[in-house]
Amino acid sequence: MREGQILYTYLHLAAAPKLAEELLKRGVTGVAYETIELDDGRLPLLQPMSAVAGRMAIQVAAAYLEKERGGKGILLGGVPGVRRGRVAIIGGGIVGQNAARMAIGLGALVNILDINPDTLAYVDDIYQGRVNTLYSDLLSIEESVSRADVVIGAVLIAGARAPKLVTEAMIKKMEPGSVIVDVAVDQGGCIETCHPTTHDDPTFTVHGVIHYCVANMPGAVAHTSTFALNNATLAYGVKIADQGIVAAAANDRALARGLNTYQGKVTHKAVAAAVNAEFVSFSSLAK
Amino acid sequence: MREGQILYTYLHLAAAPKLAEELLKRGVTGVAYETIELDDGRLPLLQPMSAVAGRMAIQVAAAYLEKERGGKGILLGGVPGVRRGRVAIIGGGIVGQNAARMAIGLGALVNILDINPDTLAYVDDIYQGRVNTLYSDLLSIEESVSRADVVIGAVLIAGARAPKLVTEAMIKKMEPGSVIVDVAVDQGGCIETCHPTTHDDPTFTVHGVIHYCVANMPGAVAHTSTFALNNATLAYGVKIADQGIVAAAANDRALARGLNTYQGKVTHKAVAAAVNAEFVSFSSLAK
Amino acid sequence: MREGQILYTYLHLAAAPKLAEELLKRGVTGVAYETIELDDGRLPLLQPMSAVAGRMAIQVAAAYLEKERGGKGILLGGVPGVRRGRVAIIGGGIVGQNAARMAIGLGALVNILDINPDTLAYVDDIYQGRVNTLYSDLLSIEESVSRADVVIGAVLIAGARAPKLVTEAMIKKMEPGSVIVDVAVDQGGCIETCHPTTHDDPTFTVHGVIHYCVANMPGAVAHTSTFALNNATLAYGVKIADQGIVAAAANDRALARGLNTYQGKVTHKAVAAAVNAEFVSFSSLAK
Amino acid sequence: MREGQILYTYLHLAAAPKLAEELLKRGVTGVAYETIELDDGRLPLLQPMSAVAGRMAIQVAAAYLEKERGGKGILLGGVPGVRRGRVAIIGGGIVGQNAARMAIGLGALVNILDINPDTLAYVDDIYQGRVNTLYSDLLSIEESVSRADVVIGAVLIAGARAPKLVTEAMIKKMEPGSVIVDVAVDQGGCIETCHPTTHDDPTFTVHGVIHYCVANMPGAVAHTSTFALNNATLAYGVKIADQGIVAAAANDRALARGLNTYQGKVTHKAVAAAVNAEFVSFSSLAK
Amino acid sequence: MREGQILYTYLHLAAAPKLAEELLKRGVTGVAYETIELDDGRLPLLQPMSAVAGRMAIQVAAAYLEKERGGKGILLGGVPGVRRGRVAIIGGGIVGQNAARMAIGLGALVNILDINPDTLAYVDDIYQGRVNTLYSDLLSIEESVSRADVVIGAVLIAGARAPKLVTEAMIKKMEPGSVIVDVAVDQGGCIETCHPTTHDDPTFTVHGVIHYCVANMPGAVAHTSTFALNNATLAYGVKIADQGIVAAAANDRALARGLNTYQGKVTHKAVAAAVNAEFVSFSSLAK
Amino acid sequence: MREGQILYTYLHLAAAPKLAEELLKRGVTGVAYETIELDDGRLPLLQPMSAVAGRMAIQVAAAYLEKERGGKGILLGGVPGVRRGRVAIIGGGIVGQNAARMAIGLGALVNILDINPDTLAYVDDIYQGRVNTLYSDLLSIEESVSRADVVIGAVLIAGARAPKLVTEAMIKKMEPGSVIVDVAVDQGGCIETCHPTTHDDPTFTVHGVIHYCVANMPGAVAHTSTFALNNATLAYGVKIADQGIVAAAANDRALARGLNTYQGKVTHKAVAAAVNAEFVSFSSLAK
Repeated sequence: MREGQILYTYLHLAAAPKLAEELLKRGVTGVAYETIELDDGRLPLLQPMSAVAGRMAIQVAAAYLEKERGGKGILLGGVPGVRRGRVAIIGGGIVGQNAARMAIGLGALVNILDINPDTLAYVDDIYQGRVNTLYSDLLSIEESVSRADVVIGAVLIAGARAPKLVTEAMIKKMEPGSVIVDVAVDQGGCIETCHPTTHDDPTFTVHGVIHYCVANMPGAVAHTSTFALNNATLAYGVKIADQGIVAAAANDRALARGLNTYQGKVTHKAVAAAVNAEFVSFSSLAK
Repeated sequence: MREGQILYTYLHLAAAPKLAEELLKRGVTGVAYETIELDDGRLPLLQPMSAVAGRMAIQVAAAYLEKERGGKGILLGGVPGVRRGRVAIIGGGIVGQNAARMAIGLGALVNILDINPDTLAYVDDIYQGRVNTLYSDLLSIEESVSRADVVIGAVLIAGARAPKLVTEAMIKKMEPGSVIVDVAVDQGGCIETCHPTTHDDPTFTVHGVIHYCVANMPGAVAHTSTFALNNATLAYGVKIADQGIVAAAANDRALARGLNTYQGKVTHKAVAAAVNAEFVSFSSLAK
Repeated sequence: MREGQILYTYLHLAAAPKLAEELLKRGVTGVAYETIELDDGRLPLLQPMSAVAGRMAIQVAAAYLEKERGGKGILLGGVPGVRRGRVAIIGGGIVGQNAARMAIGLGALVNILDINPDTLAYVDDIYQGRVNTLYSDLLSIEESVSRADVVIGAVLIAGARAPKLVTEAMIKKMEPGSVIVDVAVDQGGCIETCHPTTHDDPTFTVHGVIHYCVANMPGAVAHTSTFALNNATLAYGVKIADQGIVAAAANDRALARGLNTYQGKVTHKAVAAAVNAEFVSFSSLAK
Repeated sequence: MREGQILYTYLHLAAAPKLAEELLKRGVTGVAYETIELDDGRLPLLQPMSAVAGRMAIQVAAAYLEKERGGKGILLGGVPGVRRGRVAIIGGGIVGQNAARMAIGLGALVNILDINPDTLAYVDDIYQGRVNTLYSDLLSIEESVSRADVVIGAVLIAGARAPKLVTEAMIKKMEPGSVIVDVAVDQGGCIETCHPTTHDDPTFTVHGVIHYCVANMPGAVAHTSTFALNNATLAYGVKIADQGIVAAAANDRALARGLNTYQGKVTHKAVAAAVNAEFVSFSSLAK
Repeated sequence: MREGQILYTYLHLAAAPKLAEELLKRGVTGVAYETIELDDGRLPLLQPMSAVAGRMAIQVAAAYLEKERGGKGILLGGVPGVRRGRVAIIGGGIVGQNAARMAIGLGALVNILDINPDTLAYVDDIYQGRVNTLYSDLLSIEESVSRADVVIGAVLIAGARAPKLVTEAMIKKMEPGSVIVDVAVDQGGCIETCHPTTHDDPTFTVHGVIHYCVANMPGAVAHTSTFALNNATLAYGVKIADQGIVAAAANDRALARGLNTYQGKVTHKAVAAAVNAEFVSFSSLAK
Repeated sequence: MREGQILYTYLHLAAAPKLAEELLKRGVTGVAYETIELDDGRLPLLQPMSAVAGRMAIQVAAAYLEKERGGKGILLGGVPGVRRGRVAIIGGGIVGQNAARMAIGLGALVNILDINPDTLAYVDDIYQGRVNTLYSDLLSIEESVSRADVVIGAVLIAGARAPKLVTEAMIKKMEPGSVIVDVAVDQGGCIETCHPTTHDDPTFTVHGVIHYCVANMPGAVAHTSTFALNNATLAYGVKIADQGIVAAAANDRALARGLNTYQGKVTHKAVAAAVNAEFVSFSSLAK
């Protein structure tokens, strides 16, 4: 069977109905990176970007803490005898753990907050005594944020808007010249005062606190990001090329979840709902 | 030359004039562990006891933090998701560094305060990111103490009373059920509210804060302490035995400083002053 | 549907038939912390207490090694040049790993014994070269125990009595003044000579070896334990409050396993057997 | 004896002859932070600034590696599966060790080059296996620089211009978008293509390589720098205040070396030569 | 039911048809270590041998790097100031991770290559900054191998020949006196130039590169290997002894997969195919 | 002044009187690497070789523990669940610390014995909890050696024969197939049963224990050793070349101690005694 054209990349069709329409009209098989999903809910083609963004968040924050960029003039690691910078990381997933790695590496005093006990225990195992793990609740967030020089928003909930865990009232309590980086901003962000910015104009200030909310952070380190992404996409791409999309999707449930359009039909439920199209299951088409 | 009897142990003659008198009368050669001193001012036969006391201080503090012993019921290392205990160590010498090692090992959040930049840099090198090093001044002491669950007094100044760096006002700010261990208590202590206690009745409470001020802490772990002390005293003992005290002292300035009495004379200035005796230099006698 | 009163706490109905009877009579919905169980058999509301108890076990042991408390006078971490204390931890689960963390942190020489190869490999990864991992068999237990200054009993088998892995004969071979802490004692203990004690009278001595067998160790660090427990119970509590018990249990198998009584019936098999009541499945009642 | 006005700060009189003239005219006692020198040649009031600058150098470099700032788009620590950034640190003193700490912390692959075997051995001890220590010679510098994403110039020679260890030819071999930070630039710099810049216009590009050469880097983290400096200057300041400058300088050779002007005379040889004034020893004046 | 004789050991019947025939003839129940397999595909009775072989591979390589054994005279860890040896480990499974542990421990600069993102992330977590994790593709293998002093072949694919990831062309680019250890050689090896050797004549040289390809590496450290194997086999052995093979296999799917022969029939598909016998499912026989 | 020929290398004239005679006859200026000595007694041109030999000693020992080479078949690091190899390192100087680094890196259980408290404390700081530091005395040596799988002789006393700290009686108590490496063997060795061997025939067996006693161990890793040596000798060589030997020796006491022959005279006391020549001080000749 001839399979026609296959588009294998980030599609975000829900937010791009015209693109969806075109794909359907042309009968393009659309495989979206962002909906490929493992059985345990992990998104393998988003993870490398989360790792990049999490690591980058800290070096961005360190830069904006400098006086010249409006920061309070704190060196994250301090020096012997002088207090270290305090970093609060809201969320202990891939973004949060990678941010924690870098913040710990720079010598900061790091609070990482999450509600998953396995996550907290693993972080505690890996960074023995070099990080404070805290169960994330209103009180612990408020205490951590209000004392922090840097807050990293790292709450990503697959396919849903992140909750506004950090409120404007908490931001008000931070010292002027503190820095916020919201890595979740492209999904609405988990910090009330955040809205997406661009690399051209990356920051704004609310209550004296610098907000860095670039929606596509990994673009700034494109060399690293490209390799990271390729490493993740290659395996699925090879499967598609080797087996054809029908067999590949049949043999790999994660890949199957990535199928958004096929033979002029929308084959992904959420996408179908978003673009107001009929949902048809891939398996019914691919027989 | 016959050298007569040699007494080689802790003497503390300044505080024991009768013993001094007796040694002089009997012509005993008194070599005091506590006055053997290296050229750089270190006291090699006190150091092992400082290491033991510093390490033990933390396990003592951990025990008294338990509810049953009157403490606030905090586990020093916390558990994942729950805040760790906060430990303030006043002084970064041998006592302080050994206390820090154990507190870090138990997972506590440790502030270590000192004024020696080389000490702070070395501690920072050894425990990268697992300890806060702070320059010790009134402000940093007050902040550290008032937030601490455990305060370790670790300021020892050779041959002098330790200054009262931690005031009663600071103690008042601590939460009830917090614990203080003053390892320097036998030299007056560096904490205003401390006075020496014994292993039989080791603690008292001031402003709700438990004070553990046993003057001879290493006695509680006698097995370890004995070996530690022997390891340190053996080399000097062997020198005395091999070469005789005259040659040994001539060849080893540290040992020479340990000579308190010789041929019925006091050969150590501070001791002579303390027991109101004439000071005669050992070299003038030993020719 | 009105759901009536819900009791969400540790119930231990098997050991408290009168309480069970009362709950049934009043139609109380009893959700027992201790029977909430994940699909992989882990007990999420017991884990935080195990972590606390494991960590606390070592500081308790360190305290009882002091001469004043009858111990052999060994400092667990030794000091440079003097042998470190030897700790044998029987069991590498949550209790064992947390005990190991603290023992390693205090500088002891630690043997941790388990039969699960994944556990041994993970511990080896996390504490590279700072711990001896040993496959647990009669020989390795005997060797480890007979040379140990401290033995930690850390074998917990969900819903079953722990086996007596450490025999009285092994205890006899230990040096007087050694210390045993059996964290599993409230489930019978894995050490033959142990029986439960209380915080008021926590120890007894057998063959010269101090036994600390307090059944409710976390109570001593109530502040830490309370937060640890709340962090774990909160999520299930919120589900019950948000969805009602019926929907919550339907959506979360772990929570469903926690249901012990419902509408005057016992809905947990083991509990039903223990209190000699009829077992009725929750799902049959909750339709 | 009345001691007159004392100016205790950075003076840099050699570069400011007018200031020198004025101090002499007014009889001001000038104690220069930058010439206070320990017996082993270390400069205790420059060290904290070196520590700050060394640590900051890496976060500056990380920021300029971003595409938006003209860099090659490399994340210093890479992510799992993608190569880490390569950092070459020329010089293993305080600047170099602090830069290494941060670069290692961010996960970079670090070469640190020095000719002092004790320095190399200590760095190897502290960062076991996380850094490449290399004896600094033409070959090792060329190899390290040409492969590096980031080069840190960290050669400071007290009271002398740093040698141009990194030549323009080496810079040419670097990939475009690489970053150089010359922390030694205010002493001429150890990199041929460098010249001092300011925080307002911090960088320029040579052969496609971004040069960051701000002469006063610690100014950007003024909060941290101020505390670091105060911690270092306080002790000497207290001595001057307590004992008067004459006694203080008599009792502390390091402080004595800090005396640049006294009673209308230049009391520091190099300064005297630089401002073309007569050198008079402090000791001859202070009798 | 009498169960007859049970042979529980490594069988490798596919390669030993005569042995298979004999077992069938005699009705022996053959349980093969090498086909016991967990649900997730791991082979629990091969893993301990993989761990031993991986760890041993590095000490073997270190030895053959010595001049006397034909190597290039490189010390794997270098010394301070002299470059460390470079090790490329192809494969990040049990063999690869254990080899990495030892190579890192000896101070080498280690590249570990794999395609599994979870593996790379875990290795990155455990050895923070002490190892380069690289996604394994033609380019990264070629670069790593051509620069390496030591290459470890660590690709094992359960039940299949390992692919020839390292080609002869890559080997040609290595410097003479470099060393290759192919731990996968008994499954064909993942290095083109490798063929199995024995402990008696363990190496050969191709393109100046020393090849160590002993098929049974763990035999050299028989003491360690024996204990490692026993620890793994014991649990299954006990199950067989306690429950009988029928019940044991029914209760443990991993064990069931180990059954190769039963009541004169081949009960393992691949073995049946290999020895050209009829396959009969154990469950059909064991009723 | 013309300075004539300068021979700058290892000379060992005491053991080569003919060479000494020739140098004197020809008026060669002989600067011996091995007698260049810092004020604190360290020998900077022997240290790199000690580092190499110490590190290499462990990989040699690991190799000889293999069955094929006669060893007991123990893997130094064990594997998870199986005991690690035990290594006793007699002496904590450069050889001992480097050996310890490698043994710890391979995962062995390491005892390092020394009598210098500063050495023991530093090793304890650097390898927290990954090594046993023991004060070296008859008892601790005997216990460590008799239980060890590997003993490293690492006692080097500058210019003197090493004492026989490990006696034949202790060797007898070791298990057959254990391995001894005596790095001090070229100075007589610190182990009673050792005598020098060569790379061609490196080992012999006494009481079943394999003895590796190659006098010139670093020769086996010539590539690493050469660079290590060059790094150390270069600085002195440059001084000689730049300043001439007279000025160079005048400005650098360590270098001056290296002068063995000058203008036909022996300028080193110990050499003069050994070759039965008149000693003439260099300073008297070089005026």
